[in-house]
Amino acid sequence: MTDATELAYLDLVDAAAAVAAKRVSSRELTEALIARIERWQPHVNAFTSFEPEAALLAADRADASEPTRPLHGVPLAHKDMFYAAGKVVSCGSALRADWVATETATVLERLEAAGQIRLGALGMAEFAYGVTGHNSHFGHARNPWNPERITGGSSSGSGVAVAAGLSFAALGSDTGGSVRLPAHFCGVTGLKTTLGLVSRANAMPLSSTLDTIGPLARSARDLRLIMRLVAGPDPLDGETGEPWREDDRPASAMTIGVPTSFYVEDLDADVASAFQQAIETFRSLGCRIVSVDLPDEALLSSAALIALGAEAAALHRRNLAERPELYGEQTRARLINGFGYSGVQYVDALRGRGPALARRIEHMGACDAVIAPIARFPAPPIADTDVGARFDGVVAAVSALMRPVNYLGLPAIALPAGLSRDGLPIGVQVMGRPFNDPALLTLGEAFQSATDHHRRRPPDPS
Amino acid sequence: MTDATELAYLDLVDAAAAVAAKRVSSRELTEALIARIERWQPHVNAFTSFEPEAALLAADRADASEPTRPLHGVPLAHKDMFYAAGKVVSCGSALRADWVATETATVLERLEAAGQIRLGALGMAEFAYGVTGHNSHFGHARNPWNPERITGGSSSGSGVAVAAGLSFAALGSDTGGSVRLPAHFCGVTGLKTTLGLVSRANAMPLSSTLDTIGPLARSARDLRLIMRLVAGPDPLDGETGEPWREDDRPASAMTIGVPTSFYVEDLDADVASAFQQAIETFRSLGCRIVSVDLPDEALLSSAALIALGAEAAALHRRNLAERPELYGEQTRARLINGFGYSGVQYVDALRGRGPALARRIEHMGACDAVIAPIARFPAPPIADTDVGARFDGVVAAVSALMRPVNYLGLPAIALPAGLSRDGLPIGVQVMGRPFNDPALLTLGEAFQSATDHHRRRPPDPS
Repeated sequence: MTDATELAYLDLVDAAAAVAAKRVSSRELTEALIARIERWQPHVNAFTSFEPEAALLAADRADASEPTRPLHGVPLAHKDMFYAAGKVVSCGSALRADWVATETATVLERLEAAGQIRLGALGMAEFAYGVTGHNSHFGHARNPWNPERITGGSSSGSGVAVAAGLSFAALGSDTGGSVRLPAHFCGVTGLKTTLGLVSRANAMPLSSTLDTIGPLARSARDLRLIMRLVAGPDPLDGETGEPWREDDRPASAMTIGVPTSFYVEDLDADVASAFQQAIETFRSLGCRIVSVDLPDEALLSSAALIALGAEAAALHRRNLAERPELYGEQTRARLINGFGYSGVQYVDALRGRGPALARRIEHMGACDAVIAPIARFPAPPIADTDVGARFDGVVAAVSALMRPVNYLGLPAIALPAGLSRDGLPIGVQVMGRPFNDPALLTLGEAFQSATDHHRRRPPDPS
Repeated sequence: MTDATELAYLDLVDAAAAVAAKRVSSRELTEALIARIERWQPHVNAFTSFEPEAALLAADRADASEPTRPLHGVPLAHKDMFYAAGKVVSCGSALRADWVATETATVLERLEAAGQIRLGALGMAEFAYGVTGHNSHFGHARNPWNPERITGGSSSGSGVAVAAGLSFAALGSDTGGSVRLPAHFCGVTGLKTTLGLVSRANAMPLSSTLDTIGPLARSARDLRLIMRLVAGPDPLDGETGEPWREDDRPASAMTIGVPTSFYVEDLDADVASAFQQAIETFRSLGCRIVSVDLPDEALLSSAALIALGAEAAALHRRNLAERPELYGEQTRARLINGFGYSGVQYVDALRGRGPALARRIEHMGACDAVIAPIARFPAPPIADTDVGARFDGVVAAVSALMRPVNYLGLPAIALPAGLSRDGLPIGVQVMGRPFNDPALLTLGEAFQSATDHHRRRPPDPS
């Protein structure tokens, strides 16, 4: 294995195994990624910080020591919202341009303890409060399949880096679609995790009610490797408590529901077709496919937007008052809108969650999961969606199918499901039961054993 | 022991011991209380339901069986907000006048398992949203020391019944002073418990952030008996988890802080005098007395009012819209005011709690507890405080010293500390550390070993 592109496109599991077996050195892997990053970065703007010298030093140290850890010598980069002591952590914002973290996020600590090498940090929507990949301070992220198209956000750099072979995997966060949308628009695999499964300690907060941290990678198998390392109780995050518990059933023992409304309305023809093909793939894998009625999704989306809007506005209140000019116009307008919700609306949004989750479990019946599109269309042009303070309409359209699982705290896996006639990726999401993220990975692995959508690579920049 | 008044004024601990030793029958105790209730009820309006026949039947059954349980054959009544399957539970409201509960509150189940006999249910402010004892539907509760004076609320009937010897103890709830205020104005002992120590399952909710359940009785020793029975984890209430853990230190090993501001301003002369005497009593008991600076109390009170207002308004939104005429004018006006808070104000109130508690612990330094007055004055006239929709001013004055511990979730014991020159009771509160309710009972027992304020009885109605 010497071709840099082939090294960079190794699955994470295989890259780690190759270093462990000393078939490939950490330096070779790291050099392969650095070469690609230098080539791609001007075209896609994936990184907010890039640390090639430090990464190579760490790679040499890894090559000089015994590879006993699961990610020994594997270079990775993550969304620039996970605090890393001593590093500037931009959170995609001008406000934090010089802010140096004093603590390290639990998820980073766990990956570092597993042996990962830091390549830098990946771009994101300003304070993770965006779903397209626009960023007026760092510049917009650009889709590797077509740089005039959006990447999806807020984990825009994570989607781009994994798709373009600039990182074997990347952590993101999903508050209202921020893992699944970049996975869909960039053509990678991503996991929106169950609320409370992954520690949020020392990660930038946006909405305590909705924020979840999860990985993007090129396969469900790779996601499982990351999840085994980062999931589970953390004394620093009181919301955690559940351990990672595998579900040993094969996909053929699982039942998947297909919604009869909401998720299946107004779909672009290519999205509808990819969605139907994905359902047929799961059927061919032995999954039982049934119809499922989910009548509450629009209400759940509204409740999620109230919780998010009020919490984000509260978090940013002081900075909005004191340093408004350091926010981008899109973000500022959206944050300001959050002040319009009443306390009673917010209390109702919070109180409604338990009953809504109970209803969802009832509606799911025997289903282990529910399959749905991620967005109604493939990546739209950046220019069409860069509309400043009138951004709420764009947000609503792009994230229309995202928020129910955030409100309910449920897991969902995003899987590449094909390309549009324009050559743009299309994904599907498979939404699960609380804390049964492992079953979604099993479904994803089965799907990817029968399809090669996740193996498609964007064309090299010309 | 045959005199009915002496039987009725037994401490709970002694009444239970007398039945257990068969020195007194459950029927004798029950008849003694029934006789007093029949005499007092027209004067003080303590009960919303009274079940003498059922109580006597239960007493006879208790007398016919072995007294193995800690409250075997002891008649008690509690605030009419604890659901009891098959019973009308009024919650002090016309809306619930015919509502029959289908479940039983965990606290009632635990006392019933301990052998208590149900005498009926005690009056309260409408939906516990009042601090005076006014109730336009059931009629105002009246102070046994002077029926023209308020009782304090919302656990008005609990304060009255314990003071007048109509129940050996009574559960109440404290969201913004509702245990401590009736204890103060009626001259009994009460415990505002640490949030999360006592299950709220199947008790009427007002504010999930602030509601706590706690007992009123005539001594701290009696409170401990009740707390040992009702405190601790309940699978039906996810907020619970901490067990009841005794603190074996004597009062003489404890340090009590005296605030330098907020609690000590604008006190009525008799209240100031009783407060100073209480401090001297603790000093004479060997407690270390130190000054303590608590600079945040006014802010904490505001935050508590925001949380309470928004949560209460959300809970009552539908009924306020559909059946406004079934609310009293005071309650309706106060509930409606709660719609005025913004989501951001509410989020800030919730987010502020953790840091505020950390600051409180820091300010307390070596103090085990902080002593303060409960209200700045003894019971004012009912007529002066019955001001309809302009009730918020009365609420603010009566509960001025109550809300910081509610906001912080801390425990506080209310102890009788003397009588005013007008012959009205005055209490003090001793506010503790999280989950160290037992230390407050130790302080209360020591205080009551050195004083007889808690032994004073209101004069019989003429």
